[in-house]
Amino acid sequence: MQIAILAHEKFPGRAKTALGVLRYADYDVEAVLDRDSAGDRVVDHVPDVQDAPIVAGMDDVEDVDALLIGIAPIGGGFDESWREDVRTALERGCDVISGLHYFLEDDEEFAVLAEENDCELWDVRNPSEDLTVADGVAGDVDAEVILTVGTDCSVGKMTVSMELARDAREAGYDAAVIPTGQTGIMIEGWGNPIDRVVSDFTAGAVEEMILEKGDEHDYLFVEGQGSIVHPAYSAVTCGILHGSMADQLVLCHDAGREAIHGYEEFELPSLPSYVDLYEDLAEPVADATVTAGALNTSDLADDAAARDTVEEYADAIDAPAADVIRFGTDDLLEALLE
Amino acid sequence: MQIAILAHEKFPGRAKTALGVLRYADYDVEAVLDRDSAGDRVVDHVPDVQDAPIVAGMDDVEDVDALLIGIAPIGGGFDESWREDVRTALERGCDVISGLHYFLEDDEEFAVLAEENDCELWDVRNPSEDLTVADGVAGDVDAEVILTVGTDCSVGKMTVSMELARDAREAGYDAAVIPTGQTGIMIEGWGNPIDRVVSDFTAGAVEEMILEKGDEHDYLFVEGQGSIVHPAYSAVTCGILHGSMADQLVLCHDAGREAIHGYEEFELPSLPSYVDLYEDLAEPVADATVTAGALNTSDLADDAAARDTVEEYADAIDAPAADVIRFGTDDLLEALLE
Repeated sequence: MQIAILAHEKFPGRAKTALGVLRYADYDVEAVLDRDSAGDRVVDHVPDVQDAPIVAGMDDVEDVDALLIGIAPIGGGFDESWREDVRTALERGCDVISGLHYFLEDDEEFAVLAEENDCELWDVRNPSEDLTVADGVAGDVDAEVILTVGTDCSVGKMTVSMELARDAREAGYDAAVIPTGQTGIMIEGWGNPIDRVVSDFTAGAVEEMILEKGDEHDYLFVEGQGSIVHPAYSAVTCGILHGSMADQLVLCHDAGREAIHGYEEFELPSLPSYVDLYEDLAEPVADATVTAGALNTSDLADDAAARDTVEEYADAIDAPAADVIRFGTDDLLEALLE
Repeated sequence: MQIAILAHEKFPGRAKTALGVLRYADYDVEAVLDRDSAGDRVVDHVPDVQDAPIVAGMDDVEDVDALLIGIAPIGGGFDESWREDVRTALERGCDVISGLHYFLEDDEEFAVLAEENDCELWDVRNPSEDLTVADGVAGDVDAEVILTVGTDCSVGKMTVSMELARDAREAGYDAAVIPTGQTGIMIEGWGNPIDRVVSDFTAGAVEEMILEKGDEHDYLFVEGQGSIVHPAYSAVTCGILHGSMADQLVLCHDAGREAIHGYEEFELPSLPSYVDLYEDLAEPVADATVTAGALNTSDLADDAAARDTVEEYADAIDAPAADVIRFGTDDLLEALLE
């Protein structure tokens, strides 16, 4: 599928979704829309993802199947300066994919245009109507289920899941990602936005995805969310832990993080206590063990220092660890795959 | 407020909400509607709740402010045999309170009648639109927050919360209930249906209630939901644990329960491990300890055997315990209140 990615005034630094799609998705990205750097190419800003021209708007984009909104303002609203591009896309018969809180299908102009031009408006944050409670059967699938869990939000769970799955496939394993958040869903092209489902269906919405893919692949890498001790988001984390009935857990952490991001009065508990908490909580439902760790060392300038920090982390959680972006996934895949 | 309770063909054995309202709510119940036992009185069937006549339909009910739907069929649908009573209530200017999955406000006839007669249709399962994520501040309120947690669903958490709060008030303490489920909400006349909110807002929806009441009372008894190791519902439990930032936990259990109800392949972990799990999971967010236990011994015919079982339970969880229905709340209140 050929797509364009809208990232006005935010590419690449504040365009996390756009970057994730460029890095991990199977789409052919024909253009990135950013009126601030029109004329540049992606490679001028980010060297290690698929390249594409940066253009000022949809009028400068050749034929594509879809326009993907690759940025989100604080609050998740729709920026009216994007309207012309979305309108043009729909008039040309392109689908529009959005992870905004503001649902495009509830926008009257877009709804009419989509209808007239036979396009789909895919609001990935809008959960399916037919989700329900878990049956506790995710453990019955053939695949080995590997879930990323975290010491906090924004420690790299999505990235680690994507890197591991991609490299496992490149090494010849049959692996797939179970996406649970908006960026993961936009990358994979399907999935349930677990943080938006009815709370009673949290585990069920994960289980439904595991059942859908679990007999088609040998390994499922489940994108985790939040942290089991997060003052606001632990419910989502707990639902994913039990709903996925994971076999293995990869504990993700950001080097130097000492308190919950945005909730700084809450200190992170010790690293070994995270291992115990996740394993003890999982145990009555699924015998999940922390078999690997992933550490984000991007704040450390020096590779040698990063290596030392990763080693300390591995010692603390008593499992092999790596910074998968800095040092690759080999050590983790060796621990995780049979 | 004067109300009538609809419980057709199900009172009292299969009318859990009706019984809860009769037992714990402040409403004056003027009548129970059950066409199968019209002519009886409540006291003929249930001795220890407020009494009222049982009638065949709304036509036999004197002036009331509201009709409350006190039963729920499997699936939570609306039984068409109730339509005439709801219609009559609305035509007479009564509000209608319902905990069904089927929202009365989405029923065209009821919506029109409510509008015409200036009545409110209160669907208690329909969460408020303005809920959001937790700020992690429930611990700042003046009140001592006491949360019921469970080894499983349907072990008596709602009942225990209600009994403790009522008896605390009768003993002169300033105590209130924070209701989190449909029956609790219908009893208290307010509250957020935590199992129906967006999963990201689970903790936030509890926190919002704690903040609303926490500086007005000395003790808040928070109605817990589910169990922290439930294959389907643990997300809700975890969100309430962290969102309430409880000071004390009351561990509720049903004597003889050995596996998760409805998920019988999942054995309950040992009782001490529940204490550890709830305390360890709460600890990074709030320093909650299991200071009391509540055991439902209703399956044991013999009081002496029940007493022994309660003592064994207290030993297992290393905290004072009681069956609050069978033996009263004195021992627990002594442990919980300062």
